[in-house]
Amino acid sequence: MHIDIALLGFGNVARALARLLVRKTDTLREEAGLTYRVTGIATHSRGFAIDPDGLDLEAALRLVEAGQKLDSLHKGPPVADTLALIAACPADLVMEATWLNPQTGQPATDYVRAALAAGRHVVTANKGPVAFAYRELMELARRQDRGFFFESTVMDGAPVLGMGREAFLATTIERIRGILNSTTNYVLTRLEQGVSFDDAVAEAQQIGVAEADPSNDLEGWDATVKTVVLANVLMGADLRPADVDRTGITGLTSADLKAALDAGERVKLLCEAVREGDQVRASVRPARLPLSDPLSQVDQTSSAITFQTDTLHRLTLIEGDTDPTTTAYGMLVDMINIARGRYK
Amino acid sequence: MHIDIALLGFGNVARALARLLVRKTDTLREEAGLTYRVTGIATHSRGFAIDPDGLDLEAALRLVEAGQKLDSLHKGPPVADTLALIAACPADLVMEATWLNPQTGQPATDYVRAALAAGRHVVTANKGPVAFAYRELMELARRQDRGFFFESTVMDGAPVLGMGREAFLATTIERIRGILNSTTNYVLTRLEQGVSFDDAVAEAQQIGVAEADPSNDLEGWDATVKTVVLANVLMGADLRPADVDRTGITGLTSADLKAALDAGERVKLLCEAVREGDQVRASVRPARLPLSDPLSQVDQTSSAITFQTDTLHRLTLIEGDTDPTTTAYGMLVDMINIARGRYK
Repeated sequence: MHIDIALLGFGNVARALARLLVRKTDTLREEAGLTYRVTGIATHSRGFAIDPDGLDLEAALRLVEAGQKLDSLHKGPPVADTLALIAACPADLVMEATWLNPQTGQPATDYVRAALAAGRHVVTANKGPVAFAYRELMELARRQDRGFFFESTVMDGAPVLGMGREAFLATTIERIRGILNSTTNYVLTRLEQGVSFDDAVAEAQQIGVAEADPSNDLEGWDATVKTVVLANVLMGADLRPADVDRTGITGLTSADLKAALDAGERVKLLCEAVREGDQVRASVRPARLPLSDPLSQVDQTSSAITFQTDTLHRLTLIEGDTDPTTTAYGMLVDMINIARGRYK
Repeated sequence: MHIDIALLGFGNVARALARLLVRKTDTLREEAGLTYRVTGIATHSRGFAIDPDGLDLEAALRLVEAGQKLDSLHKGPPVADTLALIAACPADLVMEATWLNPQTGQPATDYVRAALAAGRHVVTANKGPVAFAYRELMELARRQDRGFFFESTVMDGAPVLGMGREAFLATTIERIRGILNSTTNYVLTRLEQGVSFDDAVAEAQQIGVAEADPSNDLEGWDATVKTVVLANVLMGADLRPADVDRTGITGLTSADLKAALDAGERVKLLCEAVREGDQVRASVRPARLPLSDPLSQVDQTSSAITFQTDTLHRLTLIEGDTDPTTTAYGMLVDMINIARGRYK
């Protein structure tokens, strides 16, 4: 099987994906019988490139990392924007990792919709399209007989959604609890160690965990969008981020965290989705967890989810030491699973 | 799709499976388009029953739980033993949960071989056939174009092997570390709390975690067989239990465990499989783990595995609150995955 790929976005995650594709070329051919070419790349500020015969990925990486544009690799008529590239690029699969506005899910949702409408499979690392338009996009993918996979949207490369598809069968998920946002978990860990809130946020920015404007993380929006993905995909809910009962971590102090520790508890930004009759209720808020709860042990930038189903009483998945390659790996697994028809 | 099932064994796990099948009949039909009948049951001491039109599972459960034999449900010529039932019972799938000799893998290995040779799919909860004959049985299943699944052999219903099949793709597992045996983990937890070794073992027997002869668990044999399953199935090794560097927990005292705790560590029976060049080296032995290691937090009868691959640096799966239904659920998931062709 051969797949031609259009890459949308060429930031940290998409470049890690490009490097992973190069590194795994032989493995994909030998283990999955899969060959690929990247026939198009759309970037935010480094231009666009299409080559129906396949772009030189290493050349594209060198250009962008040297601060140059991709235009020298482009063949054919000029491309105006990302939607134009989706239309013009000959590809079987669109892999999407662009910048996201977490409060609207755009422009990623439009990109995914356009790609599916054009008959492409889609793999996205973006939570937005799933949190804001899951049912519509999944229904479109079904009508088109195409795959729409997004493993990397929650817990990077950890197989959270793959477990839903392949392992949670004929069972009802009653409750999902998770620690899903790195910035807040890092800040809470440092507060516990006596660092002030502002210093902890500054540290998180310095090591590249928090963004220049950290409010999206600190106020719980990122965790909220991930909770909506889990509730909608794994529990059959139809929530939007505004439906989630959301409280961030601003206002918490080192003293709060230490008082909890003295009581044998740790404060975590807890994401929760709970089935209540026909409804699923979701919340994101600081919670005191006993030390015996595996979620209380999730430190720094690790993340974790505990599932409770009617047949598995307590199943916890913890991911540590993540980096852009971990996220890219989730996208690579999605690509392989689409190639072997797991979307049918 | 319709599946006729032969059940081998009718102990705690197989009876939990029978009850789960009854409970999930509607769900299987509605969610997986799957109907089933149980056409045969082979027991150790309660006789044999075959009915090509489908046995009444609830009647079979009532008989055995009342201490009676299954013979009144049987139709057709008498059945001499389990191998004869495998040959005579019209079934698409054999689900196997018989008693196992952990040092030989028998008689389960013979049952699985006979079932595959007769063209049946096989789901087993027995580690033995996988630890002693994985390559041979998998090759036989491939030749027969049949599924041979065994999710419940390690960590009950947790999707450990499913993750290997569906989520660890184009990646190399470098190291697996696990806490996989309930009896030893229960005893170690109680030693830490000041209970003596003999009292802790007696307690484990009383609550049904340890068997009357607990040496198979305490000397690390059960953990060793599970480690071999993981190494052979997920890391491509070809080990046998005798190849594992094995040390049990007999000889450990409450004082040893408390000394470790004072040093910020906990003693666990650690299972490990490590890739070293072309080889996989496996060991089972008591180890002191720092409290920051999620495996150190696995208490009582919970179990856990940490995977380290070349793309996922640290992924941990923890299962708590297990019971025979959890194990049975792993078998049900295997059945559904066979029905939807995941073995191809």
